[in-house]
Amino acid sequence: MDKDSILILSGGLDSTTLLHYMKDRIACALSFDYGSNHNSREIECASWHCKELGIQHIVIPLGFMKDYFKSSLLEGAGNIPKDEYDMENMKSTVVPFRNGIMLSVACGLAESRGLSHVMMANHGGDHSIYPDCRPEFTKAMSEAMKAGTYNGVTLIDPFTHKSKGDIAAIGAKLGVDYSHTYSCYCGGEKHCGTCATCRERKEAFRVAGLEDPTDYEE
Amino acid sequence: MDKDSILILSGGLDSTTLLHYMKDRIACALSFDYGSNHNSREIECASWHCKELGIQHIVIPLGFMKDYFKSSLLEGAGNIPKDEYDMENMKSTVVPFRNGIMLSVACGLAESRGLSHVMMANHGGDHSIYPDCRPEFTKAMSEAMKAGTYNGVTLIDPFTHKSKGDIAAIGAKLGVDYSHTYSCYCGGEKHCGTCATCRERKEAFRVAGLEDPTDYEE
Repeated sequence: MDKDSILILSGGLDSTTLLHYMKDRIACALSFDYGSNHNSREIECASWHCKELGIQHIVIPLGFMKDYFKSSLLEGAGNIPKDEYDMENMKSTVVPFRNGIMLSVACGLAESRGLSHVMMANHGGDHSIYPDCRPEFTKAMSEAMKAGTYNGVTLIDPFTHKSKGDIAAIGAKLGVDYSHTYSCYCGGEKHCGTCATCRERKEAFRVAGLEDPTDYEE
Repeated sequence: MDKDSILILSGGLDSTTLLHYMKDRIACALSFDYGSNHNSREIECASWHCKELGIQHIVIPLGFMKDYFKSSLLEGAGNIPKDEYDMENMKSTVVPFRNGIMLSVACGLAESRGLSHVMMANHGGDHSIYPDCRPEFTKAMSEAMKAGTYNGVTLIDPFTHKSKGDIAAIGAKLGVDYSHTYSCYCGGEKHCGTCATCRERKEAFRVAGLEDPTDYEE
């Protein structure tokens, strides 16, 4: 199969699964260093999987987001909510229009290289909290990308109606080594185990019936 | 009137006119340093007008575009076409999905600051050459911005069906000092006067019946 796509790869569970799921079509994986608490640990994981699969990995620096954007995810571990992954707790972790920014950069790079698609691992569990993960957004964004490029670049987001548990089950079948993925919004050496994203991660492994390979703080 | 908008301001003729035209609604102007030949001269002009009007000016560094994107505008003055502003000559100067990237960053900043709109000075003369200046693109992008933000940020592009001559005429009525705007794709101290954007600039002043305040090389 032709390598016709660029993947947005954070190094978390979802996008790492998509990397393995679509590896034959991915010409290049893009990670973004935007100054979040857990950015460097995520990118290290992203790099590990790209190396394993022989896929080019590019890290795009977006340091201005930490300087100018408002989000608890950019303000240190002490500001991350430590309860359930629900609407009110997680709203503070939204990084405004982050997916729009990452998709636009990936789209420009795809156009530069004559590629046809950008892939992203947004999933059903994120829709209620993150407006830039919802199907209304991804559909309009794909149309903007198509209209705004000579190549007619479009978005492929195969997990948009799946849960994080579904995604972990897909990855398990593909043999993805999830010990080299990072989710914790606090960004410590070990996953904290108590922030909302750690809870969501644990739940995904439980629902998928997998042993959780993560070394949690608590 | 409330200051409800962020303007994308290059420092060229079009966006500088929009800055003056909408000054009462603009909370902040954003310029982007993406490594084009003429970037630093443009930004100097942008800064001059913001200072004159007392509007905050932020410069966002996007240095990765020069590293990874393909465009003659990022490759030195020697690569800029020196003939008419037409389709074939100007296609090489397209910076892939540049407007998508700038709009996404501006949208995220608008959402961070509780603002409702992003303004951009795309105009009718650019539609045939630059896909990310066309109404199909701006319409879809505005929908993506709206769907992808809590604030429902939308795009305002009042010049989308105007010509560069129309824009210069609007600016003249507003008393815009066009000697502090920069257009030349070659990026020299003086405008070269022969590249396609210099020709387009001259033509805009001629059509608007204005004296051209530009100091050209030739």
